[in-house]
Amino acid sequence: MKTLNVALGARSYPIMIGGQAMHQREALAHAIQGKTVLIVTNDMVGPLYAGALKTTLEQLNKTVYVHELPTGEQFKNLETLNTIFDALLSNQCDRRTTIVALGGGVVGDMAGFAAASYMRGVPFIQVPTTLLSQVDSSVGGKTGINHSLGKNMIGAFYQPQLVLADLNSLNTLAQNELAAGMAEVIKHGAIYDAVFFEWLEQNITQLMAKDPQALTHAIVRSCEIKSEVVAQDEREGGLRAILNFGHTFGHAIESGMGYGAWLHGEAVGVGMILAADLSVRMGLLEADKAARIKVLVGAAGLPTEPPKLGVDAMIALMQTDKKNDAGQIKFVLLNGLGGHMIQSVPEQILRDTLAVCA
Amino acid sequence: MKTLNVALGARSYPIMIGGQAMHQREALAHAIQGKTVLIVTNDMVGPLYAGALKTTLEQLNKTVYVHELPTGEQFKNLETLNTIFDALLSNQCDRRTTIVALGGGVVGDMAGFAAASYMRGVPFIQVPTTLLSQVDSSVGGKTGINHSLGKNMIGAFYQPQLVLADLNSLNTLAQNELAAGMAEVIKHGAIYDAVFFEWLEQNITQLMAKDPQALTHAIVRSCEIKSEVVAQDEREGGLRAILNFGHTFGHAIESGMGYGAWLHGEAVGVGMILAADLSVRMGLLEADKAARIKVLVGAAGLPTEPPKLGVDAMIALMQTDKKNDAGQIKFVLLNGLGGHMIQSVPEQILRDTLAVCA
Repeated sequence: MKTLNVALGARSYPIMIGGQAMHQREALAHAIQGKTVLIVTNDMVGPLYAGALKTTLEQLNKTVYVHELPTGEQFKNLETLNTIFDALLSNQCDRRTTIVALGGGVVGDMAGFAAASYMRGVPFIQVPTTLLSQVDSSVGGKTGINHSLGKNMIGAFYQPQLVLADLNSLNTLAQNELAAGMAEVIKHGAIYDAVFFEWLEQNITQLMAKDPQALTHAIVRSCEIKSEVVAQDEREGGLRAILNFGHTFGHAIESGMGYGAWLHGEAVGVGMILAADLSVRMGLLEADKAARIKVLVGAAGLPTEPPKLGVDAMIALMQTDKKNDAGQIKFVLLNGLGGHMIQSVPEQILRDTLAVCA
Repeated sequence: MKTLNVALGARSYPIMIGGQAMHQREALAHAIQGKTVLIVTNDMVGPLYAGALKTTLEQLNKTVYVHELPTGEQFKNLETLNTIFDALLSNQCDRRTTIVALGGGVVGDMAGFAAASYMRGVPFIQVPTTLLSQVDSSVGGKTGINHSLGKNMIGAFYQPQLVLADLNSLNTLAQNELAAGMAEVIKHGAIYDAVFFEWLEQNITQLMAKDPQALTHAIVRSCEIKSEVVAQDEREGGLRAILNFGHTFGHAIESGMGYGAWLHGEAVGVGMILAADLSVRMGLLEADKAARIKVLVGAAGLPTEPPKLGVDAMIALMQTDKKNDAGQIKFVLLNGLGGHMIQSVPEQILRDTLAVCA
């Protein structure tokens, strides 16, 4: 079991990474102060893991309720969120109740926002069961839901008391979901750590075969990088924006294709290829480095070509992205492999990069 | 114009109190960094003040949208909240958009929670137009909405950039609404400042006649007291609980009568009388002090007798209040006039106090 500390002052918390992480009793006993726990999960993950987690918590003398959400991003909305509040209130959960998110990013985002909002904030533990949620949403405190007019438009920054990234839960993960998580792992290498990027190039086969040792290193290093970035910029005023590498293009693809048609990680994978191409055109990155990113994304089993949404449509979609500041699109570019830079770009250069979407 | 600073470190903000406070251009220009403003108001207050406020903001070169909510506590729910998000998104408001709450507590609570949640937090300015919201919700950062199973169950602690308490807006305030606000003013004196309580006894006639000088002093001193308490306990872990004096009984009355039947301040007024009686029975307060509280509540035009909800029903209602810690009802009691103490009480003594509800 590896333990990593996310250093956020009074809001610091540990991430434990390894097989059976979700059954770490001492960590759970320490993190849960009250008597009552609500496990929020979905109807795919719940049947696999909620029973065993409930038993572990009951052995710690907790009263445990389980609330299953319908599975899928299309349910990440106010109505589904309200079912969590229904469950909390009908079980008379008080402000010392801990909410445990058991599932992937959608469950974590919704359970986290419920925890941030219920009685203006109750304790929260994350048990991410996908690679994506283990390397991405388990660090950073972003929670939220979608609105019909935009993704993740409603939410809160809210830190958990504890994150338990259980490697065993990846055994049941579909290969395309593993690949989607790997996109964020690759991203962390690309923007921050060229050595880690090279390690990923050398180990991508083992990683995609779910080799536990390789996965542990990839998850630990990803969480370390994200923690370092978030610790410097908890509420996303500056440095943290580099974590959006590939996301401006990626969100446009997700939105343009209709949410759910592409996995988030798939869209981010192609988004990174586009952002790397843009970095080359801006003179910030050598072409062979951009080519290596494309190869690694492909080796992770991710798409490497954007959908043909059209150049104008892509630009319009990017302009509605919430990362924009007063209408100006800012891009996270690679300033060499392992380096980063945030800036706007001349429209013609952007159009050249987007020509592959035509 | 009086200005008061609420000291909360990086989240500190000024409260300006006086006639025409909502047109303080320098303060508005300083507090609003972005180009876009959404005024959230209701269909009673909006027609009276939104036009003039919009003009003032436009003169500061802001693009101003106005969103009117239906008036009333029964609309303080997720559905109405979502209409604020609709307005923000359909006007392409970004994360630099400032939300201005123009109205009473319901508008402030909903607009504040929308500001806390939209894109995980946008700037927020409060323009409270009722006495209650000027002395209560303008300090403390509590925002939120109701759930069908409980009041204020969903929300956030979120501090505004600026509060403008405009005395002129009280000119259109109904007398029972003025009285409801006075309940919280009386509360601040009772729990924290016996000298202020005496001043209120001497000036209650002028206050209820809306004398501007008297009102200014009452609002300033109330905000000062609440600020001092909140500054010591921003997220309601300890001292801040004293602000719930009268509220455990009050919430039970509101809930038992059906929300909206009694104004919050009316229920709190009677709640303070009950809490003072309980303090006397617990040997913490002299009977003549409790009598003075009852007289002052009555002089403010507030009811002084609880509704006949029944003793058992009142106890059951209080047990579901979110202030409870693991099922135990804690009461804020007066430890002498101007002093406070939080504790649970023997059930029989509570029943003796509640006998007037039978």
